Amino acid sequence: MKRIGILTSGGDAPGMNAAIRAVVRKGIYDGLEVYGINYGFAGLVAGDIRRLDVADVGDKIQRGGTFLYSARYPEFATEEGQLKGIEQLKKFGIEGLVVIGGDGSYHGAMALTRRGFPAVGIPGTIDNDIPGTDFTVGFDTAINTVLESLDRIRDTATSHVRTFVIEVMGRGAGDIALWSGVAGGADEIIIPEHDFDMAAVAKRIQEGRDRGKKHCLIILAEGVMGGNEFADQLATYGDFHTRVSILGHVVRGGSPSARDRVLASKFGAYAVELLEEGKGGLCIGMLDNKVVAADIIDTLENNKHRPDLSLYELNQQLSF
Amino acid sequence: MKRIGILTSGGDAPGMNAAIRAVVRKGIYDGLEVYGINYGFAGLVAGDIRRLDVADVGDKIQRGGTFLYSARYPEFATEEGQLKGIEQLKKFGIEGLVVIGGDGSYHGAMALTRRGFPAVGIPGTIDNDIPGTDFTVGFDTAINTVLESLDRIRDTATSHVRTFVIEVMGRGAGDIALWSGVAGGADEIIIPEHDFDMAAVAKRIQEGRDRGKKHCLIILAEGVMGGNEFADQLATYGDFHTRVSILGHVVRGGSPSARDRVLASKFGAYAVELLEEGKGGLCIGMLDNKVVAADIIDTLENNKHRPDLSLYELNQQLSF
Amino acid sequence: MKRIGILTSGGDAPGMNAAIRAVVRKGIYDGLEVYGINYGFAGLVAGDIRRLDVADVGDKIQRGGTFLYSARYPEFATEEGQLKGIEQLKKFGIEGLVVIGGDGSYHGAMALTRRGFPAVGIPGTIDNDIPGTDFTVGFDTAINTVLESLDRIRDTATSHVRTFVIEVMGRGAGDIALWSGVAGGADEIIIPEHDFDMAAVAKRIQEGRDRGKKHCLIILAEGVMGGNEFADQLATYGDFHTRVSILGHVVRGGSPSARDRVLASKFGAYAVELLEEGKGGLCIGMLDNKVVAADIIDTLENNKHRPDLSLYELNQQLSF
Amino acid sequence: MKRIGILTSGGDAPGMNAAIRAVVRKGIYDGLEVYGINYGFAGLVAGDIRRLDVADVGDKIQRGGTFLYSARYPEFATEEGQLKGIEQLKKFGIEGLVVIGGDGSYHGAMALTRRGFPAVGIPGTIDNDIPGTDFTVGFDTAINTVLESLDRIRDTATSHVRTFVIEVMGRGAGDIALWSGVAGGADEIIIPEHDFDMAAVAKRIQEGRDRGKKHCLIILAEGVMGGNEFADQLATYGDFHTRVSILGHVVRGGSPSARDRVLASKFGAYAVELLEEGKGGLCIGMLDNKVVAADIIDTLENNKHRPDLSLYELNQQLSF
Repeated sequence: MKRIGILTSGGDAPGMNAAIRAVVRKGIYDGLEVYGINYGFAGLVAGDIRRLDVADVGDKIQRGGTFLYSARYPEFATEEGQLKGIEQLKKFGIEGLVVIGGDGSYHGAMALTRRGFPAVGIPGTIDNDIPGTDFTVGFDTAINTVLESLDRIRDTATSHVRTFVIEVMGRGAGDIALWSGVAGGADEIIIPEHDFDMAAVAKRIQEGRDRGKKHCLIILAEGVMGGNEFADQLATYGDFHTRVSILGHVVRGGSPSARDRVLASKFGAYAVELLEEGKGGLCIGMLDNKVVAADIIDTLENNKHRPDLSLYELNQQLSF
Repeated sequence: MKRIGILTSGGDAPGMNAAIRAVVRKGIYDGLEVYGINYGFAGLVAGDIRRLDVADVGDKIQRGGTFLYSARYPEFATEEGQLKGIEQLKKFGIEGLVVIGGDGSYHGAMALTRRGFPAVGIPGTIDNDIPGTDFTVGFDTAINTVLESLDRIRDTATSHVRTFVIEVMGRGAGDIALWSGVAGGADEIIIPEHDFDMAAVAKRIQEGRDRGKKHCLIILAEGVMGGNEFADQLATYGDFHTRVSILGHVVRGGSPSARDRVLASKFGAYAVELLEEGKGGLCIGMLDNKVVAADIIDTLENNKHRPDLSLYELNQQLSF
Repeated sequence: MKRIGILTSGGDAPGMNAAIRAVVRKGIYDGLEVYGINYGFAGLVAGDIRRLDVADVGDKIQRGGTFLYSARYPEFATEEGQLKGIEQLKKFGIEGLVVIGGDGSYHGAMALTRRGFPAVGIPGTIDNDIPGTDFTVGFDTAINTVLESLDRIRDTATSHVRTFVIEVMGRGAGDIALWSGVAGGADEIIIPEHDFDMAAVAKRIQEGRDRGKKHCLIILAEGVMGGNEFADQLATYGDFHTRVSILGHVVRGGSPSARDRVLASKFGAYAVELLEEGKGGLCIGMLDNKVVAADIIDTLENNKHRPDLSLYELNQQLSF
Repeated sequence: MKRIGILTSGGDAPGMNAAIRAVVRKGIYDGLEVYGINYGFAGLVAGDIRRLDVADVGDKIQRGGTFLYSARYPEFATEEGQLKGIEQLKKFGIEGLVVIGGDGSYHGAMALTRRGFPAVGIPGTIDNDIPGTDFTVGFDTAINTVLESLDRIRDTATSHVRTFVIEVMGRGAGDIALWSGVAGGADEIIIPEHDFDMAAVAKRIQEGRDRGKKHCLIILAEGVMGGNEFADQLATYGDFHTRVSILGHVVRGGSPSARDRVLASKFGAYAVELLEEGKGGLCIGMLDNKVVAADIIDTLENNKHRPDLSLYELNQQLSF
């Protein structure tokens, strides 16, 4: 293999640039040429491709977002799109591809592999909702960003004796809510993977207030419902001076944390090694603190992401 | 004067604790006893008052919120409330009061002064909408918090070539939007103090896009309209891949900036000096980089807060 | 078991307060009384002990340092010290002890256990140099703090085309240097666990400069030598416009990261469970992403902490 | 005037990039061509000059350092250097120059003006030691960076009941120490502009300890002496468990604060306006919260920077 390509796809996540840097530098270190593809699969099909040199990834490891841009591109699910993409790769002499993104990106990598073009997936999303890895690139930064906001909101909640509903991202997964909730000492954590009883929530808030508690912080995963809807439902049980805060796209950006940069660097270097060994159709992950690779088709079809539900129980014991 | 009291009122703001600390320490340094009143004017009327010692303000200067708690208490506008409040102050032997907060708090201080009880106001609000001062305690922290969010959102906006409408606090004032917008290199700043033309905004976004601009950030003061409403109106002019981010209560909290702590410390110490000199009915401010005091009634009745509109024009020249 | 005690010992680390909170809240949740011992083993011997309630750990999860204070107390290595400590514990009816700290603290816990008093150790140190765990409480925060400083120094190094030697903490271990070095894109990482050749370092700096590199960042673990000594040795090979920055105690403090708070919460709750089951003489750890406990004597005597040296090799391939 | 140039000189400071961006964008907005000169006066003499477009300053406002690089270049004090510099400017058709930096940079601008080439100076340094302005670009960021470190050190100092000597930058000026010391609640602030008595310092530390104070933070401006030297002198009066922390180059970097970005934007735009009006030989400043310009020769020769010594007295009253 002489030339490899790299693209980022789906929602951007902090650490994507660190992963791109690792792929580029590791590739060049090993004597390869590395090509960057702009705007994900859309740019792949359009041939928006350029060679990346060491200088192109200088001063990028600490930047949020992705300097290769990203885009959602459902058209890549079609045979036409995939064939066109492979044609573009061949035009540039690219023999292997690294794809950084979420499960949509994995499907793209899987489709390429099925058509004989070796592709390797790196899990990059703040939501942590990818099977085959304990942690995705971007998750650690995201929970720290949420945590900073929780710490800020606690100041205000305490000063005014208020209940706060804080809606956090995560798509269908509760990982961001769980981790930031435990770390932030949230009173309640509401996630899609665990049922909840609004009446019981209201009762616990009232009991806390009766005991002199100055604030109540409820972390709500967006996969359950919206923050305003939650507050409306809660209000039917009493007036808890509730305020809603929706931590939206702020959580996607920012300079990546140390963990995310290290994870991204390990993943990026390993992806290059896999391609050099002629291995495609794999997705990389961190399982039990070890970098691993697994069949991407098998991972998507037979595995399901599960958050660490022991955190849910832990929080119930620590935040009564 | 032997005993003075202090309370915080209205919305909490970073730096309020630094101001309380300054009042307590300066008071004790000068030989006074200082009493803290919890929950603003509500606590004053209820007699929720306790003596504060140096140890009570230890490890507080860096904390957001207000450890004396705050509350809105419209009942203090009544004669009954005011007389009851003065009765409580006299019961504790308190002869002068420092009030930290926004214009509602100033009205309370003014009412006490009119009834013969000397009160001094310190402007504490993130909104910067108090007459008689160029800067309020909390404003500098708030614009830095907004700025961090802008920098994060820019990562994501650039990665996806999107338009972002970022709604920021400020009540009726555009100061937060103006300062954070200029500092964040916003493409558009929409404030209550300056009219705007949605069609022209849409046209500039389109022109920027045509020139290859990767993102468009619009900072919207909440006093104009809500972020979602703005996005809906903008959408009638075209599809700009708009996302909305509402930076709510996150902006109220957080450890105060260096400026806010210094401002709060100066204001707090000066408030004590004024009461020691027997001067009540004053509000403190920073005008032209100097700490000043002015008649609180005159300030509220004859002055109006105006944001620095030169920033508006500056941004138009720098973010075309 | 009805009453348990908790103390922090050795150098303080971010997340110690989160661990104390978890011990207190989990204990009370399970119906125990929890006692806090101030100033580590020194306070234990002196009987500086008080009952902790839920309110005592409110608003503490986000604080750096340890609100139980810490102290080094070599006298606890004596029989007299240990017997006196156990006497104090019995006086308060305390039947089990949680000790948070580094290996010195572990030796204290081991000594108590050997004398029949059940003690459980939680690894708390920024240095990550404790056997029996992949990560200690405080390490994740420390590497993020170092990383922030590296990002700042890179600004200045790039602006002036300079070489920077950045000395970081870690006692005899290179973990902080390794992780922050990889995350920060350091050009060189110098650690005690890997030899280095000053002439080769100088040669690589010169080659980088010849290729137009704007800066060179060298992360130096304090366990190798001091930053100024390193710079002096480097200077014998040429003038690289070297500056030295010693990131000292700044790295010990600060609000703990999300990871550290979650780790501390898990460890704290598990320590209580172990004591409830009558298990003493254990140290808790996170191995392969799972919370585990092992015999504290065996761990100290037969295990040795080893940093993740794959990071060293990774950095050589990414920062050539 | 059709073409203007811009350079940064001396030590880099956060906000320099925001000032460059403002000069470039304001210049282009007004129909000028703007040229960037790399490496300060050294690059000017060498002709390291290139045209800057709007895209060159995109995504720069939030970056620390200076993307035009900086350098110290004492040779510019010679007639030969100055004539060569003017020759280079003329070769590119540049008719006016903006210089961002400290007093060395101002001397360069003054020399050019004296030789008939209009130059305008913008005060850019973290040290705040430039006459003709209350605040320099970079100072606000620097004091916030110091403050973060102080807050972190306080965690550790409190946990261990220690005295900390924190040496901060500032060259001959005490501004950084003064502002960050007041904002950080320092127990002692030692600056070049005010004498101090080591015996009295030691006495106050001992008294504080006797009253149960958990820590003592001493902020020391580098212009007085080094931190280790101070600690050695202090140690002759007793053992205060002193640790020294030297906050070096970390304080130079980092993303600029909101204030610094706004200040830099105002200064940059105003510098362009002055050159457009044919006014050279001026230095820009913020005096009494207003942007002003003054004769650069007169300012350097007849003015002297003075820190706000009222802060010194304030701290004595608040941190007894």
